[in-house]
Amino acid sequence: MPHFLTTQDAGFEAAFTALLGMKREDSPDVDATVAAIIADVRARGDAAVIELTAKFDRLELTPETLAFTAAEIAAEVAKVSAEDRAALELAATRIRAYHARQMPEDQMWQEDNGAQLGWRWTPVSAAGLYVPGGLASYPSSVLMNAIPAKVAGVARLAIACPTPGGVVNPLVLLAAQIAGVDVIYRIGGAQAIAALAYGTDSIAAVDKITGPGNAFVAAAKRRVFGKVGIDMIAGPSEILVIADGDTDPDWVALDLLSQAEHDESAQSILITPDAAYARTVTAAVEKRLETLERRAIAGASWRDFGAVIVTRDLEEAAALSNRVAPEHLELCVADPDALSARITHAGAIFLGGWTPEAIGDYVGGPNHVLPTARSARFSSGLSVMDFLKRTTLAKMTPEALAAIGPAAERLAISESLEAHGLSVRARLNRLNGTH
Amino acid sequence: MPHFLTTQDAGFEAAFTALLGMKREDSPDVDATVAAIIADVRARGDAAVIELTAKFDRLELTPETLAFTAAEIAAEVAKVSAEDRAALELAATRIRAYHARQMPEDQMWQEDNGAQLGWRWTPVSAAGLYVPGGLASYPSSVLMNAIPAKVAGVARLAIACPTPGGVVNPLVLLAAQIAGVDVIYRIGGAQAIAALAYGTDSIAAVDKITGPGNAFVAAAKRRVFGKVGIDMIAGPSEILVIADGDTDPDWVALDLLSQAEHDESAQSILITPDAAYARTVTAAVEKRLETLERRAIAGASWRDFGAVIVTRDLEEAAALSNRVAPEHLELCVADPDALSARITHAGAIFLGGWTPEAIGDYVGGPNHVLPTARSARFSSGLSVMDFLKRTTLAKMTPEALAAIGPAAERLAISESLEAHGLSVRARLNRLNGTH
Repeated sequence: MPHFLTTQDAGFEAAFTALLGMKREDSPDVDATVAAIIADVRARGDAAVIELTAKFDRLELTPETLAFTAAEIAAEVAKVSAEDRAALELAATRIRAYHARQMPEDQMWQEDNGAQLGWRWTPVSAAGLYVPGGLASYPSSVLMNAIPAKVAGVARLAIACPTPGGVVNPLVLLAAQIAGVDVIYRIGGAQAIAALAYGTDSIAAVDKITGPGNAFVAAAKRRVFGKVGIDMIAGPSEILVIADGDTDPDWVALDLLSQAEHDESAQSILITPDAAYARTVTAAVEKRLETLERRAIAGASWRDFGAVIVTRDLEEAAALSNRVAPEHLELCVADPDALSARITHAGAIFLGGWTPEAIGDYVGGPNHVLPTARSARFSSGLSVMDFLKRTTLAKMTPEALAAIGPAAERLAISESLEAHGLSVRARLNRLNGTH
Repeated sequence: MPHFLTTQDAGFEAAFTALLGMKREDSPDVDATVAAIIADVRARGDAAVIELTAKFDRLELTPETLAFTAAEIAAEVAKVSAEDRAALELAATRIRAYHARQMPEDQMWQEDNGAQLGWRWTPVSAAGLYVPGGLASYPSSVLMNAIPAKVAGVARLAIACPTPGGVVNPLVLLAAQIAGVDVIYRIGGAQAIAALAYGTDSIAAVDKITGPGNAFVAAAKRRVFGKVGIDMIAGPSEILVIADGDTDPDWVALDLLSQAEHDESAQSILITPDAAYARTVTAAVEKRLETLERRAIAGASWRDFGAVIVTRDLEEAAALSNRVAPEHLELCVADPDALSARITHAGAIFLGGWTPEAIGDYVGGPNHVLPTARSARFSSGLSVMDFLKRTTLAKMTPEALAAIGPAAERLAISESLEAHGLSVRARLNRLNGTH
């Protein structure tokens, strides 16, 4: 049974705070191991990557076979059914269209004194996308990471994807091909992150690394941060559904389970002002858990971290949701737009009962890489912005410098930065004819 | 003498690579100390903060005196001269105007099938700005951190600024007042970062922490990252000047020294195709170093990390600059706009000889918190975006779900995520009348 709370109960605030503070993930401390692997890859390059791949992935590589060849990719991709290909292509088209709208504009404007100010956006030169091997090797994540990079204009896009025992998911290769990825390395773990960050003889270094991974990958990303850019360190998935009671309880049950089935540490929360509906949805979840393929995982998640909260009204539901700051928020209510206006923190909002969260995972268009663990309070999902950076621009005229230079000089002196002040004063002196 | 390189020399590539890889900063390993301080503040709250402030800042506080009162701020601010106040206000006005233009727009559009997609920006609820005490307590940095937060719409803005021995910089308090900061705590170090991230009885937790600090502050920011958002971990300052030889050598010398005077680890680089000019500027630097107040610091920086590079032409200069990815880039050339178009990586560009970098530090308008240590390859300076986050929005219609739902279901099945597929299928069945 999930946690069942009612806001009118005396113990509610304590129970809700406990729910918010719940530690869902045990991060094994792999930092020392990861530090050693990174040092080894920096020191020995290809040789270290090849040895570590033999050890961890039971795969013998050479510098020549680190990357898939075009023929190898073509052979794997040929195994994909026409239906699966069409679905991936529809997803790619929609994701591309959504992210194209995110491209920010350059600006440059002129002030009355002739000064020009503005900024300019440029893409990172090269990006590396990590794609886990095995069960969590999701072609949809390839699209969600690679397409924003391509839209941003990244010139070189590399994937690192371990292939334990040589086994690869053809859909991952197809997704990479559709997204326009340039090279796919059959390497994984901390060694792959180190190779992408520092480069080896056969693997060119990149400037930004994104994508999910296990504890070793996460620790390696933290360690190379600064040398390269990284995206967020994602935690287990979460969904919060606010429902007024008019959406089919089975639909909501399936939406809750679609997060729970990801991971035993995932969290699914239902908030509703309708106590009877809360019980109906809970029963529908139990019913679906009897037959669901991943019922062991989904059942553990729902039992340990699931929660059903009955509120006085929808306004109170929105306020609680804002304290959770969920990764995914479904508003299964009659007027989702009005309720959405009350939401201040959420990674993605799905408006109305006809918008299951799973649409956003695949074909909706928005990115499915979203802030977890309450980080929607201060961060955003993956976007083209993650592959761009802004250069600010300033161009003074003599008139502009005469107008604002003295204030700069004064502040420089107040901060005891004499050369700063002199660099302005020397120019002002020229204008004044004193020098 | 700085490093002197000529691209036509045989050893150039090796020397330039060494320059790029040069380690300028020794980061003391304070992580264990910082971890203990954070744990202490989490466990004991105010009491820990007060004890640590007594120990490190020789200042006895109580929960009531942790923050400056309005009367205390007014008394300090009254000490500021009218000229300094006017300079700060001019800076604030210009910084506010520049950053107001950065506010991104919300978007929502409708597809032919009735689906609506878009996103919405919301500010973080509360931000904490760290302001170092002592020599590096810069009022300009208060403006550069606080104003973007206010423009973004952050409701609560707190400053933590240590006041060793009780000494405070009145200009810092005035800058905070001008920028609209809500509360100023007289605390510093890792204990201040811990208090802002986790909260205590007297200090409310924030969602985002920005601002520069020493090694303890930097280590603490790294540790609380995830619990709250942080800005970049800034390294020592850098300037790169590309000059064609027509800008007064003394101006360029002062611009180079205005970074060098910050810190012995700062780096100033001149790139020019004019070898004679390179020597003239070098001589001008030496001349200024004879009398500069901070000549010990600036001299050490110039000697250890300064570089003068003579290139074949300006195109080669731009290409080298892109490999450096400097924090500040001055283009002291006849056609700075044309050269700027060749620049792919730089935190801020100052166009033409009338735009000394120091203008950007104070009154230009753009932010002076910029990516250091080559991180302009993948990151940007501080902006309103650092205090905003994006929530993606999706609203399907039955028609839209009928059109794209089957592809989502297919991809869910291919990823063995049955509940994802069922959450779509249950709705499609309703449309098909099969359920």
